[in-house]
Amino acid sequence: MENRPLILVVNDDGYEARGLEAMVEVAREFGEVVVVAPDTVRSAMGHAITMNVPLHVHHYKTEGGVQYWRTNGTPVDCVKLGQKVVLRGRQVDLVLSGINHGSNSSVSVIYSGTMGAAIEASFDTPAVGLSVQDYSPDADFTAAVHYGKIIVKAVLENGLPPHVCLNVNVPKIPFGEIKGMKVTRQMDGYWYEDMEKREDPYGRTYYWLTGHLVSTDDKEDTCEWALRHNYISIQPVHYDLTAYHAMNDIKYLENAR
Amino acid sequence: MENRPLILVVNDDGYEARGLEAMVEVAREFGEVVVVAPDTVRSAMGHAITMNVPLHVHHYKTEGGVQYWRTNGTPVDCVKLGQKVVLRGRQVDLVLSGINHGSNSSVSVIYSGTMGAAIEASFDTPAVGLSVQDYSPDADFTAAVHYGKIIVKAVLENGLPPHVCLNVNVPKIPFGEIKGMKVTRQMDGYWYEDMEKREDPYGRTYYWLTGHLVSTDDKEDTCEWALRHNYISIQPVHYDLTAYHAMNDIKYLENAR
Repeated sequence: MENRPLILVVNDDGYEARGLEAMVEVAREFGEVVVVAPDTVRSAMGHAITMNVPLHVHHYKTEGGVQYWRTNGTPVDCVKLGQKVVLRGRQVDLVLSGINHGSNSSVSVIYSGTMGAAIEASFDTPAVGLSVQDYSPDADFTAAVHYGKIIVKAVLENGLPPHVCLNVNVPKIPFGEIKGMKVTRQMDGYWYEDMEKREDPYGRTYYWLTGHLVSTDDKEDTCEWALRHNYISIQPVHYDLTAYHAMNDIKYLENAR
Repeated sequence: MENRPLILVVNDDGYEARGLEAMVEVAREFGEVVVVAPDTVRSAMGHAITMNVPLHVHHYKTEGGVQYWRTNGTPVDCVKLGQKVVLRGRQVDLVLSGINHGSNSSVSVIYSGTMGAAIEASFDTPAVGLSVQDYSPDADFTAAVHYGKIIVKAVLENGLPPHVCLNVNVPKIPFGEIKGMKVTRQMDGYWYEDMEKREDPYGRTYYWLTGHLVSTDDKEDTCEWALRHNYISIQPVHYDLTAYHAMNDIKYLENAR
């Protein structure tokens, strides 16, 4: 038991999400599993961390040999608390984030708490964020669990390049229609926002943020292309935001007066 | 007046931060300025957006021709609300984020609300995040304002490459000791966390997230190298998180079973 891989499972949909249980199902046959999840829904938290309020983390159950903890922190905090507080610095072999209810393809990756947590882990640990293209609470995780296990097995055996994590997205189609897995790059695009305006019972205006993803990139090597063609998308992700291609273009700023 | 550039100023330290006023000072001589700032401190919010509670945005003053609005949203929400609600879709010419109290060099960029807002703007608008290497409320903004004006002037004249924003960091040294500006890449490193454990008056354990930046990269082309050698660092930033260098290394996953 002591030599089995140690796997930390986190998510952003919170400790009650069905996707969290699906991820535990992926993880448990490969090692010792510890769950640290937000105590409420923390979607779209990106790489947010909690600096202005104290953090709590509570053990709330042990089931099937898996320890479950929840916290008031963000998904990224779940990784930090998992490693430092819950596991007290024990070497984690793999961090799994999800399974997320909703796709994190294209630019959604920068808003995603699921991927924020995976990126945080990638500083020192192989990590995989796993998402299904279905926001509903009763999303079908059959394909995600099946292919998730294949990916976890391969990553535990082969590792990942340093400081790289995986953004895995599963199309919303029946399991039998999935054609396989493709390594992809992030499709370029943006979220077109509608700010839905409403009035509360006291006459005050408020807004709900809604929107849809707009593609500006129809090439065949992208995450969205893969999903639309019935493939699982595997995007390697890193945290170096430098736009290397632009360094020369802005060099003139060094001489601006 | 109508043909002057329209500049949206946002921040993550909140509407009462001195850095926000310093940014207005940078912006006002170049165009029409509208401020949309969080109604409280929203540091380290990364690219978080608000989906689970309604958003409010209120005009709270007009001063020196500048309109000031505040919101319960995150820094990224400030950009979205500024463009869609406050400015009702008028074309913004430049988004300025900051001036942040505290450096956003190296991997701090991924946690930064200041840079989250600049990255959000970069989908369709030139944007600059400006930060000083001093967390204190009474940080000295003299150099940041001086060089910020030079950068804003140059960016308004020349634009920026599409979908690229600037992460500008100013070292904590007297204005006269600054040697100039350098275009840099993100220094590799990580935040080493201490979870400071405390007990509340009712005997419950809680944690404060603290830590320090560890460098794993001592080359001379990085943001941190520039800051340590008395230069202002200008890092071009983009939102494509794909680790292109790793795509081939993980190609074997396509054949995993």
